[in-house]
Amino acid sequence: MSEPLNLVLFSGTADKLHAAATLVAGAAAMEQPVNILLQYWALDAFRTARADDMLGLAWDAISEGTSRPVHGSKAIPWMETFRMAKELGEVQILACTGSLDVLGIDRSELDPIVDSEAGIAVFLAAAGEGGITFI
Amino acid sequence: MSEPLNLVLFSGTADKLHAAATLVAGAAAMEQPVNILLQYWALDAFRTARADDMLGLAWDAISEGTSRPVHGSKAIPWMETFRMAKELGEVQILACTGSLDVLGIDRSELDPIVDSEAGIAVFLAAAGEGGITFI
Amino acid sequence: MSEPLNLVLFSGTADKLHAAATLVAGAAAMEQPVNILLQYWALDAFRTARADDMLGLAWDAISEGTSRPVHGSKAIPWMETFRMAKELGEVQILACTGSLDVLGIDRSELDPIVDSEAGIAVFLAAAGEGGITFI
Repeated sequence: MSEPLNLVLFSGTADKLHAAATLVAGAAAMEQPVNILLQYWALDAFRTARADDMLGLAWDAISEGTSRPVHGSKAIPWMETFRMAKELGEVQILACTGSLDVLGIDRSELDPIVDSEAGIAVFLAAAGEGGITFI
Repeated sequence: MSEPLNLVLFSGTADKLHAAATLVAGAAAMEQPVNILLQYWALDAFRTARADDMLGLAWDAISEGTSRPVHGSKAIPWMETFRMAKELGEVQILACTGSLDVLGIDRSELDPIVDSEAGIAVFLAAAGEGGITFI
Repeated sequence: MSEPLNLVLFSGTADKLHAAATLVAGAAAMEQPVNILLQYWALDAFRTARADDMLGLAWDAISEGTSRPVHGSKAIPWMETFRMAKELGEVQILACTGSLDVLGIDRSELDPIVDSEAGIAVFLAAAGEGGITFI
């Protein structure tokens, strides 16, 4: 498997971050390189100050078409899953320059798991012929 | 067309389920294999008890940037579209083991259209070199 | 890079439209063809009457997991970014026939940036072996 998993991570709710982290960890475990661009609300969620608050599953998400209570105690912290994925394989996490600017976030506010700042062109160049997953 | 359409189906609102079903039916009709992993709110929507309630277009979705009323009477039941897709082509529907656990759903509660329970690794192995669509 | 960027554009909030427009402009600038199908709320957003209202970043989006205020004055109008992308490269924008019908939108109400009306089969045929991005 040579094409990377290319992921534009846009959403900042814990349910989607958890789904994304699981996908990334799975790909890394299977030796597929992973190429991530953090935009908007996902970028905000990767700020050091916020990441620690959001370990559980988003309770708001429950309003999305279900009345079933979530077994919060079983939720896996999404940031830990991203860290594990980075240890398992080749995972590159880029902070989108445009989103940093729109949200007024400084690079130094981001969790150290973020590798660098880049624009869409750098992300697309790394994507190669692979498809792009948007979460 | 040999690469499958690989779909992580996460959302549980009828508008997204309908969009997903249409895409799956289109691919099946064009003889492209389809590989689906149900997670979170989509998994919840595939419970037998809920699937029958959600045939129309989600009215909440109207708050997503529009005031235009939806022609509910024209909405196609999304579950019927998935069933049709399975008759037309090679469509595999997997229930994500991790999501079953987090949501406390038992395999027996799911609609019989779901083929089996699996983790992310099984889904990714079936995905091959194809991209992943997240809905 | 010969496979197109295949985009099902479903969402109608300005934050997602902006993210989509940026991705499309980046691909067009890198000479990758782009194949877009407008569905549901995105289709509604491409009506001439609405497109001009939605130039900023959606304030509702702030409820999605953040309390950080958005620097609205820096937001780039998403429709302008789509227009620029069309000038830069090969970008095809299709209005989904099924969504036009469900939402009761007439083809003539859409912004002239939309090339034509088509069903999912036309979109999938143009997609070729490339993955599909859903926004």
